[in-house]
Amino acid sequence: MTNSRHILLMDGPDQRGLIYHVTNILFRQGLNIIRNDEYVSPDGQFFMRTEFESSNPQDLLDGPALLAQLSAGLDPAITLRLNPRKKKNVVLLVTKEHHCLGELLIRYAFDELDADILAVVSNYNHLQPLVSKFGIPFHYISHDHKTREEHEEAILRTLAIYEPEYLVLAKYMRVLTPEFVRHYPNRIINIHHSFLPAFVGASPYRQAYERGVKIIGATAHFVNNDLDEGPIITQDVKEVDHRHTAADMATMGRDVEKLVLSKALKLVFNDRVFIHNNRTVVF
Amino acid sequence: MTNSRHILLMDGPDQRGLIYHVTNILFRQGLNIIRNDEYVSPDGQFFMRTEFESSNPQDLLDGPALLAQLSAGLDPAITLRLNPRKKKNVVLLVTKEHHCLGELLIRYAFDELDADILAVVSNYNHLQPLVSKFGIPFHYISHDHKTREEHEEAILRTLAIYEPEYLVLAKYMRVLTPEFVRHYPNRIINIHHSFLPAFVGASPYRQAYERGVKIIGATAHFVNNDLDEGPIITQDVKEVDHRHTAADMATMGRDVEKLVLSKALKLVFNDRVFIHNNRTVVF
Amino acid sequence: MTNSRHILLMDGPDQRGLIYHVTNILFRQGLNIIRNDEYVSPDGQFFMRTEFESSNPQDLLDGPALLAQLSAGLDPAITLRLNPRKKKNVVLLVTKEHHCLGELLIRYAFDELDADILAVVSNYNHLQPLVSKFGIPFHYISHDHKTREEHEEAILRTLAIYEPEYLVLAKYMRVLTPEFVRHYPNRIINIHHSFLPAFVGASPYRQAYERGVKIIGATAHFVNNDLDEGPIITQDVKEVDHRHTAADMATMGRDVEKLVLSKALKLVFNDRVFIHNNRTVVF
Amino acid sequence: MTNSRHILLMDGPDQRGLIYHVTNILFRQGLNIIRNDEYVSPDGQFFMRTEFESSNPQDLLDGPALLAQLSAGLDPAITLRLNPRKKKNVVLLVTKEHHCLGELLIRYAFDELDADILAVVSNYNHLQPLVSKFGIPFHYISHDHKTREEHEEAILRTLAIYEPEYLVLAKYMRVLTPEFVRHYPNRIINIHHSFLPAFVGASPYRQAYERGVKIIGATAHFVNNDLDEGPIITQDVKEVDHRHTAADMATMGRDVEKLVLSKALKLVFNDRVFIHNNRTVVF
Repeated sequence: MTNSRHILLMDGPDQRGLIYHVTNILFRQGLNIIRNDEYVSPDGQFFMRTEFESSNPQDLLDGPALLAQLSAGLDPAITLRLNPRKKKNVVLLVTKEHHCLGELLIRYAFDELDADILAVVSNYNHLQPLVSKFGIPFHYISHDHKTREEHEEAILRTLAIYEPEYLVLAKYMRVLTPEFVRHYPNRIINIHHSFLPAFVGASPYRQAYERGVKIIGATAHFVNNDLDEGPIITQDVKEVDHRHTAADMATMGRDVEKLVLSKALKLVFNDRVFIHNNRTVVF
Repeated sequence: MTNSRHILLMDGPDQRGLIYHVTNILFRQGLNIIRNDEYVSPDGQFFMRTEFESSNPQDLLDGPALLAQLSAGLDPAITLRLNPRKKKNVVLLVTKEHHCLGELLIRYAFDELDADILAVVSNYNHLQPLVSKFGIPFHYISHDHKTREEHEEAILRTLAIYEPEYLVLAKYMRVLTPEFVRHYPNRIINIHHSFLPAFVGASPYRQAYERGVKIIGATAHFVNNDLDEGPIITQDVKEVDHRHTAADMATMGRDVEKLVLSKALKLVFNDRVFIHNNRTVVF
Repeated sequence: MTNSRHILLMDGPDQRGLIYHVTNILFRQGLNIIRNDEYVSPDGQFFMRTEFESSNPQDLLDGPALLAQLSAGLDPAITLRLNPRKKKNVVLLVTKEHHCLGELLIRYAFDELDADILAVVSNYNHLQPLVSKFGIPFHYISHDHKTREEHEEAILRTLAIYEPEYLVLAKYMRVLTPEFVRHYPNRIINIHHSFLPAFVGASPYRQAYERGVKIIGATAHFVNNDLDEGPIITQDVKEVDHRHTAADMATMGRDVEKLVLSKALKLVFNDRVFIHNNRTVVF
Repeated sequence: MTNSRHILLMDGPDQRGLIYHVTNILFRQGLNIIRNDEYVSPDGQFFMRTEFESSNPQDLLDGPALLAQLSAGLDPAITLRLNPRKKKNVVLLVTKEHHCLGELLIRYAFDELDADILAVVSNYNHLQPLVSKFGIPFHYISHDHKTREEHEEAILRTLAIYEPEYLVLAKYMRVLTPEFVRHYPNRIINIHHSFLPAFVGASPYRQAYERGVKIIGATAHFVNNDLDEGPIITQDVKEVDHRHTAADMATMGRDVEKLVLSKALKLVFNDRVFIHNNRTVVF
């Protein structure tokens, strides 16, 4: 996105004329809409994402002035965001599995992640060699001999150094407490190794095998207080048959997991995802 | 769609302020936008589909007046269409295969087609018994002892009785001449039994078998002068393996074909498809 | 399948040499294996499906003699079945929705179902006009003013007339009691309008909408005593997004449901499905 | 696979009793079949892959003796292979794109590739930093100031050092001459960035955009003399729409390409792929 390309995000209670209100102001400022997505939910919430640009690439946008104009006279319950930081700062949390981490590191190494990976935190040191290949700080914070609270506090202290906008649970296999989650509201993204809401909880591939399903899947979602219950960002699936053991399903599932997580991060980092009532609106 | 719900279609050369222009007029008329889709192609063509409604369901829309207002001052190259006929009139052309025809007849019988099937025309009489179950006129127009031109003229004479807006080639297995096609510009929809542009021409499943592909597909497209070359509306695929003969692929392909055709018709009949430079824009 | 093509089904506790045992006998009889599928489950159950034919199409197979030879010396816990009836007799149970029924009737009309539909039974009379187009007996057995037991007994009395091998619940929207199910062990096939085990029970599309899933699905399974818990035969899915209401999902889901049910029936009716411990083995 | 697990591959002209012949010998040797796949093509070619094991894990298999027994009396046109090398030696050829290479390196680093990557050869040095992270030799062999023949000879000289069983073209963007290919018959695997046979040749995503397709794909295939015409191993697809530019399709296509190539390599390296008449049989 060039300097002259801008993004406006808007959501709140619907009312007549919202699109007109925005397009009118942009038009009068000589700004040209490149892409506009909007949606009104059945319960009356309005969502809009507008990409626009100056006709003259040299023009500097006076963001605060534009926001002031846009919000004048609007229902104060409507949120406006202009040009969210283009490259998000993130910290990854991992345990022992490398497939999601490896995928994100390779994308990051070639500048395809739309985010800066500030650090990787893990409760094991298995993945330290991989992370070090890419020159990223690795923090091994074992949960041994610690209560859950002590462990989470140790992680939070480390995170405080980096002040990340998002935490990415790239196969972090410990349940986070509501106290932890509260520090990053709607800013923690998890990859769950099942087609939620099927097989919540532990060992979903074991559960899938036992149930004899013919399709397995993965789900990327925001984390809130209830385990595996947060807003779903994206999902994908793969066919299996009777010959696949639970271990086979886990192996196959890894490819789905890493692509589903990558896709979800791309959507979130490009400011395409709104959250409303435990559901997402994805433009 | 209730009486108070309206659709506006707009396409033409892009210029700054088009969305504002429309939303401004709708806003001033007290009309509320329910859903708005727009797209600008890389070569500068603007497409928009706007669903809107009156706040008061009793209000009657003065369509001509609204169109006049909308077109005032606009580039005359921009096309505006308001409330295309909600239920299209169509004639189906078939040969011997029943799967697409059966699918459409069942949907029609339960009012799910968004179209009225005025008649079925075929160069064989194999499907007459099926069509008659549904009380629809069936015209058997054999191509025996006729030149291609004579045959097409006979079909055109029959079509003239019904004046259909669209012709649906639901497995009509004869190539149409450019002269025939010219009577229904962008109004003939075909289902091709391959994942175009792979395997154009005859016997695509035989070709797919010979080439040893691992996925087969089907393509719904508009028909223009060049066989199998018209704008693609939608496509879908299915996995195959070495055990599938060309005949097996044809059997499996039928399920893909009928759903792809149904989906394409739903999109076209709901005025969601624009054509531009041999490509479609589908909202 | 020609007269000289045969199917042998075999399942039971695994032991060394089972494939050799069968291939040896077939070889000595001058019978040629066309396709052979076998599988041994992790808990030691052996499954095999063998298609074979006589070298001479005029040869008549002495089935009982061959079965006697095959079973001599085998663990009696091993089940052998030779040439199950090629065309199954089925009765369909429906409620009000037509999409699965329509699909099966069209396939039946063109001899593509690998089964004879003996009758359709419904607790409503909505679908009688559709069924009558195809000349199939329709039994309207209302549940009004009847207890569940009385209603099921009335259905069982009607079924007794036809003695079907399989019951197909083609969107039959009433829960069957274990007493009813016991009459047709592993012989009732249901289409469930969700990607089981997600969203068991009523209104799965409503549940899917509330949960905000990005993919919906359908599941064909055998019915046993526990609702929605029987062995899964096949499943398929379709992508949805935030714009789809629960009603939209239901509409889209119908296409998945009808194809999933058709595919499951094809597998069962072609003797490709074994049941073991609430899971299926599908060759 | 444990030491006591063995693989037998067999292909050649079909004749009655082949399965019996093998299972008889294995049975008499006290060997137990774990999994057996066979297929006879319509033109009469027999393919079989048998996994078997000793009942006693301590038993050493006398491979040459078993092969001698198996081939005694068999049509000499039938090929028998016992226990192909379990971990293949491969050299990767790349140009500038990292996505397939990165995928393979990460899998290799965690011992998931079923192959040893002996070296990476490239006509550019762009990917040297990535390869060096994983401690694998990187050979930069520029094509500048060389004829095609000189360049290929330089590559062949480097390959001669490693004697790889397979060459993997992980986005190697130069056409190989028949002379080069002849050195590695059926041992070169390529990933082609289209759903072959659609869009053979250069710039397939540009071609796909121009044609307005709604699905793009990737194809892994063996390389023979005719460009893009070799036996297909596996394919996969992804949906696109009018908003995707050719560049967007290329970006999306990369995820498909890397997984399709990984899947194909897994199949080939696990001895699951036979080649016959420009088609593959994949067990």
